[in-house]
Amino acid sequence: MLNFDFQNPTKLMFGQGRIADIAGEIPKDARVLITYGGGSVKKNGVLDQVKTALAGYHLTEFAGIEPNPLYETLLKAVDIVKSEKIDFLLALGGGSVIDGTKFIACASCYQGDPWEIIFSRGTRINGALPLGVVLTLPAAGSESNHRAVVTRKSMNAKISFYSTEIFPRFAVLDPTITYSLPPAQISNGVVDAYMHVLEQYMTYPVNAKVQERFSEGLLLTLLEEGPKALADPLNYEVRSNIMLCATLALNGFIGSGVPNDWATHMVGHELTALYGIDHACTLAVLMPGMLKVQKEDKRLRLLQYAERIWGLKDGDEDAVIDAAIDKTRQFFETMQLKTRLSDYGLTAENIPEILEHLKKHDMVRLGERKNVTPEVVRKVLELSLQ
Amino acid sequence: MLNFDFQNPTKLMFGQGRIADIAGEIPKDARVLITYGGGSVKKNGVLDQVKTALAGYHLTEFAGIEPNPLYETLLKAVDIVKSEKIDFLLALGGGSVIDGTKFIACASCYQGDPWEIIFSRGTRINGALPLGVVLTLPAAGSESNHRAVVTRKSMNAKISFYSTEIFPRFAVLDPTITYSLPPAQISNGVVDAYMHVLEQYMTYPVNAKVQERFSEGLLLTLLEEGPKALADPLNYEVRSNIMLCATLALNGFIGSGVPNDWATHMVGHELTALYGIDHACTLAVLMPGMLKVQKEDKRLRLLQYAERIWGLKDGDEDAVIDAAIDKTRQFFETMQLKTRLSDYGLTAENIPEILEHLKKHDMVRLGERKNVTPEVVRKVLELSLQ
Repeated sequence: MLNFDFQNPTKLMFGQGRIADIAGEIPKDARVLITYGGGSVKKNGVLDQVKTALAGYHLTEFAGIEPNPLYETLLKAVDIVKSEKIDFLLALGGGSVIDGTKFIACASCYQGDPWEIIFSRGTRINGALPLGVVLTLPAAGSESNHRAVVTRKSMNAKISFYSTEIFPRFAVLDPTITYSLPPAQISNGVVDAYMHVLEQYMTYPVNAKVQERFSEGLLLTLLEEGPKALADPLNYEVRSNIMLCATLALNGFIGSGVPNDWATHMVGHELTALYGIDHACTLAVLMPGMLKVQKEDKRLRLLQYAERIWGLKDGDEDAVIDAAIDKTRQFFETMQLKTRLSDYGLTAENIPEILEHLKKHDMVRLGERKNVTPEVVRKVLELSLQ
Repeated sequence: MLNFDFQNPTKLMFGQGRIADIAGEIPKDARVLITYGGGSVKKNGVLDQVKTALAGYHLTEFAGIEPNPLYETLLKAVDIVKSEKIDFLLALGGGSVIDGTKFIACASCYQGDPWEIIFSRGTRINGALPLGVVLTLPAAGSESNHRAVVTRKSMNAKISFYSTEIFPRFAVLDPTITYSLPPAQISNGVVDAYMHVLEQYMTYPVNAKVQERFSEGLLLTLLEEGPKALADPLNYEVRSNIMLCATLALNGFIGSGVPNDWATHMVGHELTALYGIDHACTLAVLMPGMLKVQKEDKRLRLLQYAERIWGLKDGDEDAVIDAAIDKTRQFFETMQLKTRLSDYGLTAENIPEILEHLKKHDMVRLGERKNVTPEVVRKVLELSLQ
């Protein structure tokens, strides 16, 4: 096992009806900015529940944080924070709203060009407003971690940053809130969480048995519960297990003390920034090819994955690995995600542009061995075409 | 899954050489009380490493916190805290030293009779000094949780208390520190951690798949690594996995959202208080009988345990369960723990005294269904005799 630090101070408030408890987590005299996206929190009653829970508080709203939240949009919220003297942020949403609110939290405290926060990958953050979360879409894990991804439209750039300042103080995880999600968002969420686990698990063994088994526990649970969530949308237990998986897939623990990959995510961000493909869909397209291209580097873990997740262990090693990768792709397809670049209208002609953007964002040595160069990514993209 | 809150702010600093990093976690002007037990931290170099790391700090030492730390001893440390104006506590040890230091932390801030802290089960705690931990014995999980157990000799009472005030700020987990532990302490630690998992896992299903699989991951890892730690004491990877298991077995997560048992611990505490039997040994003696007596209440989970942990699933259900319980007992014996009350010189004549003490400490409705009455405990004790 590698040396590591792990700390996650976010308070998880899990279960039906927990929005009612948020007033206990926010100072009574706080001036709160409630942030959300396209307005689904109005339709599903979340915003009303929050206002009821926070009766008597000074509340301001900022709507319109889009999927893959835009730097340009978020700066408008920073202006409101300053003009309204906001001192607590409450994000109602999924990864995009939460990530955007994390940026608002630190940009509101930053002296200088706020783009530096993102371009420094968070190292220049010197403080942040406290934030809480009411999670509406289990997927990104942003509700209990210290990372965020923001897109700057004018640069076609989607970039992650990190800071212990942006851990949410609390996250309400009420599975019933997810009942009204469209099936595509359920699917994306399950696949996104699955892929978060793979990015931390599908590397090489360092004898970290606990992290491996926790990862496998999350993968198995997502495999069992994901299809049920599509077939039986009002099943509380299924939604509960998915919600908790998504949070734990990226709360930092399973990636502690082990090598981390994240190459698929980095390439996926470019596909989203360039072509607007949903985040989870980019991962579903890229991961099978990424695993095939890196079969030798990841051989031991691929065999472990094949056996413990898919029950595949007999016969030729390469055949076992190929079968496990095929089953992984089939799972994404069972979750109604398309898994080829051609499904999104992309062809071999797009590959040079994707590679160029990776180079522009300094994404030239990816993966746990830093050997996923643009030339390796070219092979992955070629395998992902059809 | 049941509703729950989960928050654990302790920073884990894992790996070889991490004591060197503790100065980054303690204010430079802090007046630090270093607490420890019988002096093994002098022999194994931990105390020297700590003093080197904290060169320039105002340091005071308090030695002599015994296994099952005594209220009477700890009050002496509270006097030192007050006279030396201590404002940070640093525990070097295992569960006993850490638990004792947690009590010192809150007793130092308490106005009134400090016994009220314990007898109120922590509800009267109104503040605590900050504390850090250098873990020397992986077992209790106290290094990253909010519970402690203190014994009051004059009353033969061993009682747990809880407070979010007593989460350690940080815990150094350096597996090499455990190399010099005597085999009996390794054994006790592995069995104690295993039993902490069972107390949170061996109840009834509430469809909490993540918690179940995490628990099973810890059990499997302890089963694999425990015997190796005895056979190959300088194996860093084995020690690493055990250390992390012990911490995660009782950091609060696997017991969140699920029923908790803890009856075996409560009865075990009485055996320790009355007869001085090591904590883990009391658990190894009691658990097999506790599972047999509660076979109906725990049937579904016992079958899951038999299959996922021991690979037992074919044939008569009762035979499968009995075999799983037998294998559990054999594991304790493989770890060199004795598993009968008679091994500790106890007979049927001791049973009334044990039940009387349970009643005195209001431990009359134990277990996840609150149906483990003294009469049920009597049956467990009778099954545990030979």
